[in-house]
Amino acid sequence: MKYVKGLKCRECGREYPVEPIYVCEFCFGPLEVVYDYAKIKKALSRRIIEKRPKTLWRYKELLPIDGEPQVGLNSGFTPLVEAKNLAKYLNVKELYIKDDTVAHPTLSFKDRVVAVALTKAKEFGFDTVACASTGNLAHAVSAHGAKAGFRRFIFIPATLEQSKIVASIVYEPNLVAVDGNYDDVNRLCSEIANKYRWAFVNINIRPFYAEGSKTMGFEIVEQLGWKAPDSIVVPCASGSLLTKVWKALKEFKELGILKELETKIYGAQATGCSPISTAFKQGTDVIRPVKPNTVAKSLAIGNPADGYYALQAVKESGGAMEDVSDEEIIEAIKILAKTEGIFTETAGGVTLACYIKLLKEGKIDRKDRTVLCITGNGLKTAEVLGGKTVEVYNIKPNLASFEEALKRINEKGR
Amino acid sequence: MKYVKGLKCRECGREYPVEPIYVCEFCFGPLEVVYDYAKIKKALSRRIIEKRPKTLWRYKELLPIDGEPQVGLNSGFTPLVEAKNLAKYLNVKELYIKDDTVAHPTLSFKDRVVAVALTKAKEFGFDTVACASTGNLAHAVSAHGAKAGFRRFIFIPATLEQSKIVASIVYEPNLVAVDGNYDDVNRLCSEIANKYRWAFVNINIRPFYAEGSKTMGFEIVEQLGWKAPDSIVVPCASGSLLTKVWKALKEFKELGILKELETKIYGAQATGCSPISTAFKQGTDVIRPVKPNTVAKSLAIGNPADGYYALQAVKESGGAMEDVSDEEIIEAIKILAKTEGIFTETAGGVTLACYIKLLKEGKIDRKDRTVLCITGNGLKTAEVLGGKTVEVYNIKPNLASFEEALKRINEKGR
Repeated sequence: MKYVKGLKCRECGREYPVEPIYVCEFCFGPLEVVYDYAKIKKALSRRIIEKRPKTLWRYKELLPIDGEPQVGLNSGFTPLVEAKNLAKYLNVKELYIKDDTVAHPTLSFKDRVVAVALTKAKEFGFDTVACASTGNLAHAVSAHGAKAGFRRFIFIPATLEQSKIVASIVYEPNLVAVDGNYDDVNRLCSEIANKYRWAFVNINIRPFYAEGSKTMGFEIVEQLGWKAPDSIVVPCASGSLLTKVWKALKEFKELGILKELETKIYGAQATGCSPISTAFKQGTDVIRPVKPNTVAKSLAIGNPADGYYALQAVKESGGAMEDVSDEEIIEAIKILAKTEGIFTETAGGVTLACYIKLLKEGKIDRKDRTVLCITGNGLKTAEVLGGKTVEVYNIKPNLASFEEALKRINEKGR
Repeated sequence: MKYVKGLKCRECGREYPVEPIYVCEFCFGPLEVVYDYAKIKKALSRRIIEKRPKTLWRYKELLPIDGEPQVGLNSGFTPLVEAKNLAKYLNVKELYIKDDTVAHPTLSFKDRVVAVALTKAKEFGFDTVACASTGNLAHAVSAHGAKAGFRRFIFIPATLEQSKIVASIVYEPNLVAVDGNYDDVNRLCSEIANKYRWAFVNINIRPFYAEGSKTMGFEIVEQLGWKAPDSIVVPCASGSLLTKVWKALKEFKELGILKELETKIYGAQATGCSPISTAFKQGTDVIRPVKPNTVAKSLAIGNPADGYYALQAVKESGGAMEDVSDEEIIEAIKILAKTEGIFTETAGGVTLACYIKLLKEGKIDRKDRTVLCITGNGLKTAEVLGGKTVEVYNIKPNLASFEEALKRINEKGR
């Protein structure tokens, strides 16, 4: 059964068949997957979803594949953790962590998009997958690509330390270091995608890839007992995740799976790379590119491809954008760890820190049922905590020496 | 409903009430939890289990708690991945990875034991939890302890680099560095446990803690459609995990949940710390302590507390022990990554490398349905891959330069 009608330009509305293309030939607008919701409505219900394995593929009719899932068969359906300690700490009523720190297999939400992208790549008949990335995307493409039997290429700027991608190269992709900056790498990748029949996950099959992010939204609703929360805070790099979480909610509404939809979507950025937040605050739709300078490397996209659409989603939902300093990000990482026992990468620190700021500003109600999207594991960016650790109590190996230290610990109320 | 009868000395059989004690007052044997299986049989069935949330607590009647679960409510029920690529690579018929690399929240099987230990600690009325560890255990105690609202203490040898425990200290436990070696640290911890009313997870509440490991065995059986596999390969440090996986299978048989039990249990060690494997090979029941020297730090227990019992489980089941070199461990980590897209810590490398060796020796049948226990995530021990990475192809940012590199890559058949 096919539930995808085709592709459509987000700008001029021109329609295209399902092919590995991503940009409108006429207006250069981005292409998006269009579904046959009437048909999906007949095939999908809460009951049907509930009977399926707890992976992202339980929503397969709402994902852009024609056949059965082929990649990432254990990906998705990460825990939605009720964050009672953090709620108490922040003096809010009801708070949840959508916890992709344990995403299978590479510990970030990129497992979602890559699972979908590579299943589609199989359907298109590609034998090679590739991406330009040094972080979560490279990790996910390398791992899922290996499991799915693809030839794999990872492109990085040559100036980057190889230590940054140790998690990716263990899966033995072909690693190409380009003498240039990220723009140079991306331009070259586009050229390669045009000439060779390779699937660059975030270039020529991007419309399909991006749809994978919707599963985070679907899961949040299902895990809340088929209710949409009042507020969702989503970190923004390209802005794609935020737009897709919003799309997920609207699709559930369209299908009647959600009776009501009054969720406000909030976008979170690091101040050191906050083009979308800046546009929101200035009241303009023009996203001005910036040169990123933040510890939140996985969000450091200075010219966000979906920035405009993320901005529209935020405004349409009645939400807001916010941005935070590196200090606030690191502090938020520690707050989440000590209250909820969850260690997030910097992007999750951005999400929580922005939530805290939005609360203080009164832009999110303390009575709201709120979900924070925590998109990756802290072991991936542990270096940002360097030197900012706990006090060490050095003692001799005897009880008396320990009790001296304990006295000091007690005095500090720890 | 209480399903625990009490504690019992594994050596002399003397019985004890349910208390935070761990060693027989008379013969110094270790204490073990004894259940009322007749009562459990009336309360538990496949159907009842299947209706519950997919966490380790779905087997709660077989865990040593009296009330409801309180800690690790999202822990357990990690994927059982069908490893078709690895099976083909190794020329075996049917192979599965029990994948605790994505254990919630701290990416190792220690989340299982700590979830159970801290729930029991709550029932006992403890307000402080502690452990001596620098690795997975410290990580799990710090995280679950924070979420559960315990005061937390982590004891380490002072000589250890603090970088080793960055994953633990983000949760802000009290960190005590002891001027001595691991034996000194452990001796001091026992003294503290005796004097203060603190729950040291692997000392005074060890009998309860250790039971958490059974959930790995329960899940394997359920995830195989309520069938026990032909072979299970388990890494051995103290030997506790192996004995508990075996106990889990026997309990399921006792309860009639498993109709048959013909599983052989295989124990995996690093040659640099292989006291149990050595005893097995020498045909003795005496485990001779060794000084560990291996990259597999999480298995480096030279004097394994449950070594004798692990040995008996292996022999009782008709399995075997094996051990492998550091080179074989690292090679196995890479094989698992490139075939199955799963990045394991060194302990998982030990498991796979021993499996490969056991296959070659004809000790595991290539036709067996085999499960490999992969107990932790590779990001935790990524440093062991240092320098042993893939080739980097350096190019200029243009198509011609890329095509030159591609030619070389093609020649290598990659």
